[in-house]
Amino acid sequence: MRDFSTDHRWLSINTATVRKQADLIGIIEACARAGIRAIDPWRDQVQAVGLQRVARQLGDAGVTLSGYCRGGFFTATDAAGLQAALEDNRRAIDEAKALGSPCVVLVVGSLPGALSGQPASKDIALARRQVTDGIAATLEYARKAGRRSPSSRCIPCRRRTVPASTRWSRRSIFATRSIQGRTGMLGVALDAYHVWWDPKLEAQIARAGRERLLAYHVCDWLVPTRDLLNDRGMMGDGIVELRKLRGWVESAGYNGPVEVEIFSEHWWSQPIDRVLAVCIERFRSIV
Amino acid sequence: MRDFSTDHRWLSINTATVRKQADLIGIIEACARAGIRAIDPWRDQVQAVGLQRVARQLGDAGVTLSGYCRGGFFTATDAAGLQAALEDNRRAIDEAKALGSPCVVLVVGSLPGALSGQPASKDIALARRQVTDGIAATLEYARKAGRRSPSSRCIPCRRRTVPASTRWSRRSIFATRSIQGRTGMLGVALDAYHVWWDPKLEAQIARAGRERLLAYHVCDWLVPTRDLLNDRGMMGDGIVELRKLRGWVESAGYNGPVEVEIFSEHWWSQPIDRVLAVCIERFRSIV
Repeated sequence: MRDFSTDHRWLSINTATVRKQADLIGIIEACARAGIRAIDPWRDQVQAVGLQRVARQLGDAGVTLSGYCRGGFFTATDAAGLQAALEDNRRAIDEAKALGSPCVVLVVGSLPGALSGQPASKDIALARRQVTDGIAATLEYARKAGRRSPSSRCIPCRRRTVPASTRWSRRSIFATRSIQGRTGMLGVALDAYHVWWDPKLEAQIARAGRERLLAYHVCDWLVPTRDLLNDRGMMGDGIVELRKLRGWVESAGYNGPVEVEIFSEHWWSQPIDRVLAVCIERFRSIV
Repeated sequence: MRDFSTDHRWLSINTATVRKQADLIGIIEACARAGIRAIDPWRDQVQAVGLQRVARQLGDAGVTLSGYCRGGFFTATDAAGLQAALEDNRRAIDEAKALGSPCVVLVVGSLPGALSGQPASKDIALARRQVTDGIAATLEYARKAGRRSPSSRCIPCRRRTVPASTRWSRRSIFATRSIQGRTGMLGVALDAYHVWWDPKLEAQIARAGRERLLAYHVCDWLVPTRDLLNDRGMMGDGIVELRKLRGWVESAGYNGPVEVEIFSEHWWSQPIDRVLAVCIERFRSIV
């Protein structure tokens, strides 16, 4: 197991963690100041300041991407919606390539309309089939683009790439049973926040293995949790056994960046340099 | 599949659904007025009015129990705490017997202290072992008491009685891998609210089978869900495919009561007779 106690070269910051404090240029600058060498930016943040400008800023600052958030949201109520989702995912892959990201993180989508609070259907099996088809089509495009992507995010890592979902209504997330080959192109972005409770987690991480573990995200589960989306905790403030989890992930062969992704009204209200300093300290002592 | 459209003889009301409108005597009276023949009361409601009085009232009203909530909370930080939990579970079984309940519903417990927001440990594996031991000890007592109990509640029905947990921090719920025999004494209280999302639900219900399916609870998952505990929906107001789920449950051989359990600030604010009338209407049209 790698020793994180003396440096943070393996730390990546998912830029949602400080999204309310600065635009992406400001976030890259702050990360460079703190000696953070990798980020995982969100598409809306890139669009807000411009792709070329982000690419230049990354180069100037010596910051690389550990991932690119996000593709996905493949579900829709009609063919036009499904097609639009595929086109959007192709753009995500093109952007990831332009920014040098090794993978695109997918949040695959829930019941169509659920995100806006108006689910158009209860047919969860249909939604899963749409996700399967969407990932397959996107994977084909990614293959041609030469990206090692997409990786499916937040999957509880059950039976490799088998469908699973969070219990959340707004962002239930599924993966796909039909794409099981070790292609080296499709894998799991294991997020401690989503899987820490799973009694079979150790075995499932081992089964995913080095070839499918493409990213590892950390934060903490607070007790009590006050909001379903935006009350994630800083590592060490909750009940997740993060050191044990990283041990399992590294035993399975993963040796890439460990990405901090915290959606939290509390941490969004803090100065960016302070948030990054706490991330570094907790990365070294807790993760 | 049973036809529920013309009567509600299989409806049971979990009394938490109307806990803020009346005491248990008032709830039993309201159920009797509405032609509801079964309830699943909570221990604190029984204690508030007295066990003997409840037993008499049930007899007078012709209302029976479909279950008794709740035993469980087996986890603790020390031996005294573990022992106290076992003793409390024995009392729950004695009360269930006195009230003629066919089973005791277990909410098995989370990390010790988590319920009060102060988890004393992060050792989820230890908590699961405590739950296993607690169920085993309680099962032994229940066997002697002649109760067909306890049933473990809220288990996502995975691999029969294999451990699973909700993702909630406050009330993560585990079952037990070590007690797998078809004893007829230990089973699953399948709660649609906890398991509706599971991609493997149909197969897992089938594997649980008639001998382990001891109760079936329904409500609905609202989009959006505003509170982790107390924003459950009335059947039909959310996204759960309830008719499909009951089909799976009945195909597995379950033909007992279907219990409505809704923790909801909204429904707690409505008049009890209205809530029960809506439960009946939705039971007939949606469940």
